[in-house]
Amino acid sequence: MTTPSDPNRVIIFDTTLRDGEQSPGISLNKGEKLEIAHQLARLGVDVIEAGFPIASPGDFEAVQAIAREVDGPVIAGLARAQAGDITRAGEAVRDAAKPRIHTFISTSDIHIEHQMRNTRADVLEGAKAAVAHAKSLVDDVEFSPMDATRADPEFTAQVLQIAIDEGATTINVPDTVGYATPDEYAEFLSKLYEYTPALRDVVLSVHCHDDLGLAVPNSLAGLSVGARQVECAVNGIGERAGNTSLEEIIMLLETRRDRLGYTTGAVTTEIARTSRLVSRLTGYAVQPNKAIVGRNAFSHESGIHQDGVLKNRQTFEIMDPASIGIDDAEQLVLGKHSGRAALKDALSKLGYELDGQALRQAFDKFKEVADRKKQVTAMDLEALVTDELRGDDAVGAFRLVSYAVEATSDARPPHAVVVVGTPDRGEVSGSFTGDGPVDAVFRAIDAAVGVDARLREYRVDAVTGGQDALAQASVVVELGTAGAAVRWDLPGVVAGDRVTGAGQAVDTDTIRASAIAYLRAVNVAARKLAAGHRADGALEPTP
Amino acid sequence: MTTPSDPNRVIIFDTTLRDGEQSPGISLNKGEKLEIAHQLARLGVDVIEAGFPIASPGDFEAVQAIAREVDGPVIAGLARAQAGDITRAGEAVRDAAKPRIHTFISTSDIHIEHQMRNTRADVLEGAKAAVAHAKSLVDDVEFSPMDATRADPEFTAQVLQIAIDEGATTINVPDTVGYATPDEYAEFLSKLYEYTPALRDVVLSVHCHDDLGLAVPNSLAGLSVGARQVECAVNGIGERAGNTSLEEIIMLLETRRDRLGYTTGAVTTEIARTSRLVSRLTGYAVQPNKAIVGRNAFSHESGIHQDGVLKNRQTFEIMDPASIGIDDAEQLVLGKHSGRAALKDALSKLGYELDGQALRQAFDKFKEVADRKKQVTAMDLEALVTDELRGDDAVGAFRLVSYAVEATSDARPPHAVVVVGTPDRGEVSGSFTGDGPVDAVFRAIDAAVGVDARLREYRVDAVTGGQDALAQASVVVELGTAGAAVRWDLPGVVAGDRVTGAGQAVDTDTIRASAIAYLRAVNVAARKLAAGHRADGALEPTP
Repeated sequence: MTTPSDPNRVIIFDTTLRDGEQSPGISLNKGEKLEIAHQLARLGVDVIEAGFPIASPGDFEAVQAIAREVDGPVIAGLARAQAGDITRAGEAVRDAAKPRIHTFISTSDIHIEHQMRNTRADVLEGAKAAVAHAKSLVDDVEFSPMDATRADPEFTAQVLQIAIDEGATTINVPDTVGYATPDEYAEFLSKLYEYTPALRDVVLSVHCHDDLGLAVPNSLAGLSVGARQVECAVNGIGERAGNTSLEEIIMLLETRRDRLGYTTGAVTTEIARTSRLVSRLTGYAVQPNKAIVGRNAFSHESGIHQDGVLKNRQTFEIMDPASIGIDDAEQLVLGKHSGRAALKDALSKLGYELDGQALRQAFDKFKEVADRKKQVTAMDLEALVTDELRGDDAVGAFRLVSYAVEATSDARPPHAVVVVGTPDRGEVSGSFTGDGPVDAVFRAIDAAVGVDARLREYRVDAVTGGQDALAQASVVVELGTAGAAVRWDLPGVVAGDRVTGAGQAVDTDTIRASAIAYLRAVNVAARKLAAGHRADGALEPTP
Repeated sequence: MTTPSDPNRVIIFDTTLRDGEQSPGISLNKGEKLEIAHQLARLGVDVIEAGFPIASPGDFEAVQAIAREVDGPVIAGLARAQAGDITRAGEAVRDAAKPRIHTFISTSDIHIEHQMRNTRADVLEGAKAAVAHAKSLVDDVEFSPMDATRADPEFTAQVLQIAIDEGATTINVPDTVGYATPDEYAEFLSKLYEYTPALRDVVLSVHCHDDLGLAVPNSLAGLSVGARQVECAVNGIGERAGNTSLEEIIMLLETRRDRLGYTTGAVTTEIARTSRLVSRLTGYAVQPNKAIVGRNAFSHESGIHQDGVLKNRQTFEIMDPASIGIDDAEQLVLGKHSGRAALKDALSKLGYELDGQALRQAFDKFKEVADRKKQVTAMDLEALVTDELRGDDAVGAFRLVSYAVEATSDARPPHAVVVVGTPDRGEVSGSFTGDGPVDAVFRAIDAAVGVDARLREYRVDAVTGGQDALAQASVVVELGTAGAAVRWDLPGVVAGDRVTGAGQAVDTDTIRASAIAYLRAVNVAARKLAAGHRADGALEPTP
């Protein structure tokens, strides 16, 4: 890790693909993770925590692919303080230009006793061995004492001294349960500096959770006492209430540089696009009143505000929407007569360099949409291109061939027929009568492919305004619960297993988008079952 | 206002119905506002800012109804520092047991020069006259210097001294543009105390906006230097990125009372229900990773966390889900054979006391849903009861009589037919062929009622899990834009006017819910046009 020469330069460590991806119902495939990592590089983050390689072969492959393909940021892999984890993380990040291993162990007595069921002596020994092992694989080693803010600071300092002695170059102090107040967190970090003067020789990092709504101010409090790395995630996703929101901490430091004095390497004009990409691929909506990236963050309903904005932009706006890149996203870019060169050019402006087969596919999809929609905007194109990443082409996947539905509000219940392509049985069809038309389609899919999935979440959002807007559907299903057994054979599936799968899809037709998202969710859940996951994320820990 | 005798008692001032309701696309009717106010009273907030009476006759009536019907909290009405505003606010809150008038004027030079186009002398005079006038109407007067954090503290202190001299009992210092950092805000408030010692004799209040993600910590910083009232809104809604989130500030003070030492009068077990109610009625989704009330706030995806939670709840959870009342919302309460007494009892547990006609209507709706859904949960009942508030019975409203739609993914485009009941033309029907089935239904509605509405937002969420879940649809339409003229006569409608309307609806059938929500949105927009609103909220200012 290059330590920036500016003493007030803050290192932005993005953990969207690790802590963020651990959020319930998020399951990104390799292509999706790569796309996000490329966008994070464009955004200028300093470190990308790309995943937790020991968790599954899929995690390993995604971290490896990011290490090989994404230029610019340090690429980090997470590892418990265990030899197997660290070896695996080392293999995954090895090919990066700037690889990092991030290893962790709890120092709080509540975790040591109740969760790990070991002793302080075990923790000291484990930390020492882990950092030494990681250091033998890479130069750049980060160490985190998990649940530090609820731990004895003297003991934690003792562990940190060992980690630094063994070669850790970054020490990250997580507020794992999101419990600390800003003053308290700053006091805790100051104590660590006092007990471990060697901490001044490495980068101190903060990792805060938002359970009490304090992740951003706690991070800021950490900077005020000497931390220079902030761990954060796009849209603030992550365990429970999530991590420090990347866009909030960056724009706070930028907007209030006059008072705070910190700098970052972030290209802030990429923030809005990054937020949209992550929201679309994870299926996690951003609420309208979310700071910086919410739909309303820059809008003004009240007359006096609107009036004030017209008179002098600064009367009610402290940031320029253009500074985060939202100024032209709604602008018209293409119409139905636009050709392939125009599409290629527009995509390139959005950061997508497509050629050959990929461009042909994107063009076909574009024409299909342009036929139904007068104007295809930048936001539509983003939605279409990311939809292509979602992998209908995955081996062993079901895909929608066609559907038909008839629904009325009369006594006669809605009737749906679907045809689904299968990997091994050709095309199969199913039908269902009852409930609403969307439910009927979902159950017809169940009948066609022979599963009895339970719908856990369902959401539809319009991508832009207009009757002809693209609809984005997000579906989470559960497979394999009691009474919802998987009725086809998959290797490694044990009766009683239960897993969830999430899927998203974009289409001008709401029902078609819903049906495709549903099938994608079923595909994800089925793949998890096939891989023998007994429960979601059963192998994944987190600081 | 009774000043609590405990010096660390924090007054919770809720502005969901004022600053929150100014968010784009929110348009609550009187019944909805009353329902929220009753729930805020159950939650134990100290002050409800019920609206801005001068803004429109609807605002006035809602504030008046809340003042007359809602027991417990102080009921406040907002007023600019103008005689007409204050008189109107006084009339609206007069019948409350504890009425308050909240008046404000900007003290920042940027607002004085660019927005109000007057002078500091005008501000001094305006504040004096406004507080004196308010004091002649009610004992409890709150005064806010708008945009205070960007104002000269000496001048602001001068204005505050005048307000206190004239009888203001609460002084609220808004960070109107959400620009301050916690240290900076605390310093500013300390300066005001220094320049205006009389501030010690009244309640100091904080009103923070979340543009930089700092509304909660700024409020906390205010408390640390002496403020004892926090202005906040449910789910953190409000102008732009919104206000301090009510649930975050309350649970922060409760959870960390060990360190912070403050108390509130909040009944925290009502928080989850309040959040759901406001989200449903405003159509504003709460993102899954929102602190306290997000769907994931108490859930754990990662295996180690799940494991830790099982071993000892405290290992990863700092709050008990039961403390905010989410423990039993998903519990089964009723089935298809449940009778009217069981429904009445269940509703009563949820805080709805229904009898006679209202109970009969609720029972009919319940039976309709119970026929299609195996289990009707507390969350379903809440959704159904609040749906009844949405006013299909409003005078002059369109309502859905029936619909039929045929959709396939083949070349043949979807076809929809709808029948709509009108206030003056009996039942009218319309049909449309093209695009997706939901679009076809929306355009068939346009054809039936004779409008050309532009769809601005569209969203569908499942209320609970399960294929048979209720769907909640949220729609925002725009009427009267260029190229989308209203084609029927309404008094006061001027060519070129443009307004938005929002509507929500709940049904087991996604398309029916969407159609009803669409018609409700059209009704709201049409009523606004009829009332002569030239632009949304054109009369509404805000601190």
